[in-house]
Amino acid sequence: MIITQSVPTIQLTRGVPADESYPLELLQDCAQSALSGPHALAAMRYGDGFGFLPLRQWLAERYQVTPSEIMLANGSLQLVEFVALGLLVPGDRVLVESPTYDRTLTLLRRYGLVPVPVPLLADGLDLAALDTLARETQPKMLYVIPDFQNPAGTVMSLEKRQALLLLAEQHNLLLLEDAPYRPLRYRGEPLPSLRELAQAAGQGERVFYMSSYTKQISPGVRLGYAVGPAAALAKVARVANDTYISGAFVGQAVVHEFCQRGLLEPQLARLRTLYAPRLDAMLTALDTHLPGTLYSRPDGGFFVSIRLPASVGVAELLPKAAAAGLQLTDGRGFFVNGQEGDQFLRLPFCALTEAEIASGVARLAAVLRG
Amino acid sequence: MIITQSVPTIQLTRGVPADESYPLELLQDCAQSALSGPHALAAMRYGDGFGFLPLRQWLAERYQVTPSEIMLANGSLQLVEFVALGLLVPGDRVLVESPTYDRTLTLLRRYGLVPVPVPLLADGLDLAALDTLARETQPKMLYVIPDFQNPAGTVMSLEKRQALLLLAEQHNLLLLEDAPYRPLRYRGEPLPSLRELAQAAGQGERVFYMSSYTKQISPGVRLGYAVGPAAALAKVARVANDTYISGAFVGQAVVHEFCQRGLLEPQLARLRTLYAPRLDAMLTALDTHLPGTLYSRPDGGFFVSIRLPASVGVAELLPKAAAAGLQLTDGRGFFVNGQEGDQFLRLPFCALTEAEIASGVARLAAVLRG
Repeated sequence: MIITQSVPTIQLTRGVPADESYPLELLQDCAQSALSGPHALAAMRYGDGFGFLPLRQWLAERYQVTPSEIMLANGSLQLVEFVALGLLVPGDRVLVESPTYDRTLTLLRRYGLVPVPVPLLADGLDLAALDTLARETQPKMLYVIPDFQNPAGTVMSLEKRQALLLLAEQHNLLLLEDAPYRPLRYRGEPLPSLRELAQAAGQGERVFYMSSYTKQISPGVRLGYAVGPAAALAKVARVANDTYISGAFVGQAVVHEFCQRGLLEPQLARLRTLYAPRLDAMLTALDTHLPGTLYSRPDGGFFVSIRLPASVGVAELLPKAAAAGLQLTDGRGFFVNGQEGDQFLRLPFCALTEAEIASGVARLAAVLRG
Repeated sequence: MIITQSVPTIQLTRGVPADESYPLELLQDCAQSALSGPHALAAMRYGDGFGFLPLRQWLAERYQVTPSEIMLANGSLQLVEFVALGLLVPGDRVLVESPTYDRTLTLLRRYGLVPVPVPLLADGLDLAALDTLARETQPKMLYVIPDFQNPAGTVMSLEKRQALLLLAEQHNLLLLEDAPYRPLRYRGEPLPSLRELAQAAGQGERVFYMSSYTKQISPGVRLGYAVGPAAALAKVARVANDTYISGAFVGQAVVHEFCQRGLLEPQLARLRTLYAPRLDAMLTALDTHLPGTLYSRPDGGFFVSIRLPASVGVAELLPKAAAAGLQLTDGRGFFVNGQEGDQFLRLPFCALTEAEIASGVARLAAVLRG
């Protein structure tokens, strides 16, 4: 297989939604209503650090909590910043999955927090390791992505979710559950979230749940949210207020209109229809071109990850792949100890056509064959 | 004069725009275009930490710089956070006007920076004091609001602006010029900004200029911007990217459409027409009800400030005023050494009718008479 410069480069890099997924016409119409309806003035004014109240009320109903248990921010990543500043102090240890979302590591470190990596297995965290590390490091919090993990693509099993809650109680851990991919399940049945399990066990105070409209509507609305205990949220919202007074209400008001018109569920259904064949294309391409390689087989989300053969490091792979028309992300950024990521590759599939996915994996296989 | 509970409370507290100032119909139309026009997809996608490129390009033309010298953020307050994280290190001293914007003090302190207060006189900073303090404390930066200062309502004279630039050079100070009220001049001629003077003197690198659409369009668009040297902005934008990936592009795209249609100048003219009589009403009421009291006489902006008689402290005044149907802001928050603000009162006038302003000042005078 000869790849020349004339073949367009394929990007297997960032976890971005597909351009064709954005509901632009509906959003135009929602903007019109949001800026003329009963909440238009609220969308223009200053507010508090919790975010645009009508959307908080809508979310409160959806999650069966009170609006004081809902907070909005400019993307859920920013909520990590506010949690770091509002609930933790420099020097606090924070358990993270290894690998984990690289941008969370950056923010934790910015605020002098110490990420402690816990190995991630195919069915979620290595809980025996977590137990030992919690004993050794006395962490305050665990940052965890149970559903279609970024970057690994794994899903935490129900047994592990239940066992994790017991461990959290034992070690007095706050669970920061990041769940942006949770509604994007393309097959199979959803598992209960950690938040739901904790609620059912009367331990709701233990979970600070985050989700986002970034993957559900668009990154440009820049809108994440937290569902959490009111007292902790009040501290976090105070930090938000000190940072930017109030959020970007125009976008929040447009999303509120979108949600309250009942457009979110059809949008999610549309996304599942759009992305499911892309996941299938990715798994088929891996089976075809890289048989015998270890990779995750998720039923949803944005990512599949693979483990490179021990003979190949990501540092040497990236430039070779680029020369072959394939852009990859350096897996080392997802690990607290970067070098551990030298065999790790994250492969996002949502923003590529099935043909691009097939070509991309074929190129990867060709480069790996050397 | 007897004030009973049945008289609605008058709020002389926060610097918020008037509800009737928001161009809701125009924004509806702009949203429609922004989400259907050539930049619609860019408004949906992730971007970089600099903000929505079409608006940066529009601002670059307006300020006669390149887009790499323009950065957007969720309000200009947040730019202070990014500057603190990107250009300064904990322990750095930052000169501030005394009094200054309270929220800036909060952010500087959050990041371990040490605000050093420089007395603010009727025509701007006390430059002799600044010179001495700069020698003593070796500050890295001066945070300054030359036009219609918040909270004092003062304007820095041209002579002081020129002298300040010389001092900045001498002490190697970065000038963080916060200018959200600058376009809201209701009479008289504008003075050149510090940025303009520095540019003319070939010292453009020294000024990091900030403004905002909060007072020009609405707080809900949550959109501030910086004009600054490209190298410093790149560091600041990197912090922004680490914090929230990219900004709230939907709002930024709507504002871009508003600006490029030429709607900003008419909007500013409308604001001046709306607010000028309110400033007049405030000054007339002060002349009428509080003759002999020291207060600023600005030609624009959002605030007049007064100095209370030495016999009255703000701490005792606030509850008495509240009982008389007048909500005031505690002036101590605007001072690094809070107690110095015990005679300081900020009186915002934009979001009140002329009748409310007259009543509010009359109530204040009645309370002060005891």
